[in-house]
Amino acid sequence: MARADIKVGSSPYGPDDQLGAMNKMTAASSAAVLARADGSKVYDLSIDYFVGMPSFQAAGDPSYQIYMSHTPQGTVVDNLNGVGDEINRNVCYSGDVIFMYTHTGTHIDSLNHFGVDGKIYNGFTADEHLGSRHWMRGGAETIPPLVARGVMLDIAGLKNEECLPPSYAITVEDCQQALDKAGLTLEEGDVAFIRTGRMAYWPDGSKVLGNPPGVGLDAARWLTEQGIIAIAADQECVEVGPSQHEDNWLPGHCHFLAEAGVPMIELVNLEELARDGVYEFCLIAAPIRLRGASGAPLRPLAMALRD
Amino acid sequence: MARADIKVGSSPYGPDDQLGAMNKMTAASSAAVLARADGSKVYDLSIDYFVGMPSFQAAGDPSYQIYMSHTPQGTVVDNLNGVGDEINRNVCYSGDVIFMYTHTGTHIDSLNHFGVDGKIYNGFTADEHLGSRHWMRGGAETIPPLVARGVMLDIAGLKNEECLPPSYAITVEDCQQALDKAGLTLEEGDVAFIRTGRMAYWPDGSKVLGNPPGVGLDAARWLTEQGIIAIAADQECVEVGPSQHEDNWLPGHCHFLAEAGVPMIELVNLEELARDGVYEFCLIAAPIRLRGASGAPLRPLAMALRD
Amino acid sequence: MARADIKVGSSPYGPDDQLGAMNKMTAASSAAVLARADGSKVYDLSIDYFVGMPSFQAAGDPSYQIYMSHTPQGTVVDNLNGVGDEINRNVCYSGDVIFMYTHTGTHIDSLNHFGVDGKIYNGFTADEHLGSRHWMRGGAETIPPLVARGVMLDIAGLKNEECLPPSYAITVEDCQQALDKAGLTLEEGDVAFIRTGRMAYWPDGSKVLGNPPGVGLDAARWLTEQGIIAIAADQECVEVGPSQHEDNWLPGHCHFLAEAGVPMIELVNLEELARDGVYEFCLIAAPIRLRGASGAPLRPLAMALRD
Amino acid sequence: MARADIKVGSSPYGPDDQLGAMNKMTAASSAAVLARADGSKVYDLSIDYFVGMPSFQAAGDPSYQIYMSHTPQGTVVDNLNGVGDEINRNVCYSGDVIFMYTHTGTHIDSLNHFGVDGKIYNGFTADEHLGSRHWMRGGAETIPPLVARGVMLDIAGLKNEECLPPSYAITVEDCQQALDKAGLTLEEGDVAFIRTGRMAYWPDGSKVLGNPPGVGLDAARWLTEQGIIAIAADQECVEVGPSQHEDNWLPGHCHFLAEAGVPMIELVNLEELARDGVYEFCLIAAPIRLRGASGAPLRPLAMALRD
Repeated sequence: MARADIKVGSSPYGPDDQLGAMNKMTAASSAAVLARADGSKVYDLSIDYFVGMPSFQAAGDPSYQIYMSHTPQGTVVDNLNGVGDEINRNVCYSGDVIFMYTHTGTHIDSLNHFGVDGKIYNGFTADEHLGSRHWMRGGAETIPPLVARGVMLDIAGLKNEECLPPSYAITVEDCQQALDKAGLTLEEGDVAFIRTGRMAYWPDGSKVLGNPPGVGLDAARWLTEQGIIAIAADQECVEVGPSQHEDNWLPGHCHFLAEAGVPMIELVNLEELARDGVYEFCLIAAPIRLRGASGAPLRPLAMALRD
Repeated sequence: MARADIKVGSSPYGPDDQLGAMNKMTAASSAAVLARADGSKVYDLSIDYFVGMPSFQAAGDPSYQIYMSHTPQGTVVDNLNGVGDEINRNVCYSGDVIFMYTHTGTHIDSLNHFGVDGKIYNGFTADEHLGSRHWMRGGAETIPPLVARGVMLDIAGLKNEECLPPSYAITVEDCQQALDKAGLTLEEGDVAFIRTGRMAYWPDGSKVLGNPPGVGLDAARWLTEQGIIAIAADQECVEVGPSQHEDNWLPGHCHFLAEAGVPMIELVNLEELARDGVYEFCLIAAPIRLRGASGAPLRPLAMALRD
Repeated sequence: MARADIKVGSSPYGPDDQLGAMNKMTAASSAAVLARADGSKVYDLSIDYFVGMPSFQAAGDPSYQIYMSHTPQGTVVDNLNGVGDEINRNVCYSGDVIFMYTHTGTHIDSLNHFGVDGKIYNGFTADEHLGSRHWMRGGAETIPPLVARGVMLDIAGLKNEECLPPSYAITVEDCQQALDKAGLTLEEGDVAFIRTGRMAYWPDGSKVLGNPPGVGLDAARWLTEQGIIAIAADQECVEVGPSQHEDNWLPGHCHFLAEAGVPMIELVNLEELARDGVYEFCLIAAPIRLRGASGAPLRPLAMALRD
Repeated sequence: MARADIKVGSSPYGPDDQLGAMNKMTAASSAAVLARADGSKVYDLSIDYFVGMPSFQAAGDPSYQIYMSHTPQGTVVDNLNGVGDEINRNVCYSGDVIFMYTHTGTHIDSLNHFGVDGKIYNGFTADEHLGSRHWMRGGAETIPPLVARGVMLDIAGLKNEECLPPSYAITVEDCQQALDKAGLTLEEGDVAFIRTGRMAYWPDGSKVLGNPPGVGLDAARWLTEQGIIAIAADQECVEVGPSQHEDNWLPGHCHFLAEAGVPMIELVNLEELARDGVYEFCLIAAPIRLRGASGAPLRPLAMALRD
């Protein structure tokens, strides 16, 4: 296997910059794409969170959990709100808590999720910027609401397959052909969406976890060279797995996040867009602002573009 | 004190309906408002999540928590990912988990959050529809992405105050005057945003928690009569606190959610909209789809409307 | 398959009693066994908690989790304790949180863990006694420190096997023969320890989870008839699995906890006692007092008895 | 204020030692004290865990939480165990999870909880021994079951006060006088219990949290010089607070844990021992074995000694 040899990138926007490629999104670019958006149909690219949903747990992370902190009858019994029996019998109070790995369900990987040689994108170091609870730089709260053109590279469609085979490494040529087939090119400021077809099997954990088809490192580098501001895919890690490079277990993550400053949106559902033949769209995606977090849930929306 | 006498509402959309007032949002209404949206400036109405942030804990709920499950140097030591020392020294891996009450930060209250006499909106009962972990009806995942006209009722601005005084009960007249001042009327399908000014003090817990100024029950009823599909405010519970009604500790919640089928968006930041005089806007808000949850985080976006 | 037909037991100690069989432990019984204990060797019957440890997750419960809330260098960076850079560079502060299903690792099942027909032992009902967070009766905090004679029924040893085969149902005869072989009888006030041998495979999740050898329902009933105050085993659920009774998925739990008022201690390590031939011992076991909890961790200790 | 000038201790038991002063507990010492124990009355020195209990949250740590993962009726509705409606209506299943800071309730501080200059007791460094989730050295699982003589230094009793005043710094002389009054001396292998009286106010958070009376640094050093294997107190941090030393916010912790290798047991309830005049006792205390944890719950038991 070849080496990936990823280096941490320095931001052209200065030593304090935490936005990386997202700087390429401008008022003008957002306004332009929004002006063409057809609001009569809003595609919801997210999946929902539920107890038992598939998620990456191989490195010890927890499964998605939700619990009730207040139930209607329980509140009559425990009176945790202190308002007493009579009112609690009348008012039916329910509350709940969630506990989750931030890389569960449809989510974005923040730039601090992966780095190289102790540094994250733009050279921030653990020694200076890693708190007890989270990084002080490059976290989810720094990611602006993304209002940008989304372009789907439907590789499964290109290959006429419901889903690419496990561990299939998407090539530069695959990307170019998928764009050609759709009659599109990637432009600076776009968000690229890779369709492998895996979401067709969701939520069958035996089919959506492990050995994902995804972008190979060459394709990853080609994609970031096109000036994209974020990358997305319909599987758990955007890139192909397992790694094809001996020196790195997730070279795509290291390239996108640490080298290119490009956040990654994972586990998006592209099936409806594919069915409707919508390859170009207005993307509106706003990650929950979890300060410092290496990832955050988001619910990306897509609207077809008018001519 | 008078009684609130809230009743659970039956949905006009049938016995299985879980959307209530949100049914009034249509392809046409979303398309119309989006077509007028000015994408050159996207207002972010959310606040970020951080350790120590103010939140409602009086009934035993937890404070917002985030923890790292993977740190760069820790991964070298513990090798939880199993790839070994050499690779872990090179690849800098960070991961984290969150634990939170679903009613923390900028969030939406689902219809099942409050009910009356053991039933939630449209008559679903705990006996039949309350699981161990969450309700099977009326949860956050049922709420569609909201693409609708937002209308701000700037009550603090109306009164020429930075923030309304604690426990000030906003009246129907206040609402009407604020709309008049802005030259607007509420229409079916709108989302109403109440500005009390409390967000000016965020995140000073001593000023943003407890005894909130907010809508009184009459104003709540008037608002839902206008056909709104959701209600929002820049404080923790939309309604005034403490309750002005002897039979109900949160009559506004019971009215909006259980009687009218109107979800509530809480802790939105309206300061920038107020500064810019944007009282009417295109709202795009998509709650994270937590199945069954009584609430969910969301990051609402606003864009001014062109004529 | 036969029916188990378990009924909820009424405590002979009155309608408010939450102790059930544990009432049989007395000052005299504890004093007597302690007076014979040989403190020169303390057997630790517990296993330790770690990320990735096997645990029952088939019904959606979480894996064991621990996270740091304060790290030495992180505290320098985030100053969450507010004492500042200079002191935090000198003082090395570490703190952590745990998150776990209460039935993980060596633990005790409280009497409220299982019931029949909506009632737990002694007839407490969910409607009256189940709060939002936990039962108000029969929880772990009601269990006194157990200072009692422990008697090991070494069924694996009886059969000359390292471990009983999966799903082997231990019979009354097995119990009697194991006691005979050890030259012991069960007496009122004892705690019975069943050795299946499964702990020899700990922590290999593929061998210690699922289809456990354990006591059949007849043996369970025979054991409680002997007047034991608690039952223990070296596997996850004391009883054989899957259930041999069509009407109940865990008839042993229902019998021990709900019918007989006998708490269950699970995942104890009996290997060292077996190696040393210690079949009779002074047990000292004090569950962590989690109010209302259906289970709690504990670290049972055993000391051989002098003649 | 004077400087504390704490140094990390090197264990006389070798560079791999994680037990520190606990090495002084021997088979003979445990056997001797157990042989004198009167098992007819077992004092439970623990407090119970409940939602809303006072705990240290000033540095962002969470309050104690418990949630149900399975409720009887909820299981009928959600069938998370997969056994179906009929069985779930009959079998009444309850389960729960806990989430807690490891320094909540009656607990022990492991040696890795505090260190100095980046090292914990016996020189283990964060760089080599701190994983993502916990330290690999000096954690709670390394602490053996403590079977040792406990000696209560009743300082509140000595001063004829229900409780020592806030921030009272217990002196060496106080310790010596309390021992004299009880007719006892501290000996190698003992566990010293400091009674300040604060537990009389438990669980009134306004009185048991903050500005604790406790041992001053001189008294701490004198205590460890007597050869104790652990220190305990009836308040949250054993030592006096706030710190009387400019260079250290918790000098007692740094001394006991990092310099002397003496674990600390906090929030023990000594009221009953004081009422009964039991100043010398057989202590049996076994922390839950949380691998690597900086602290762990335990339920210490005490039995009076016969002559």
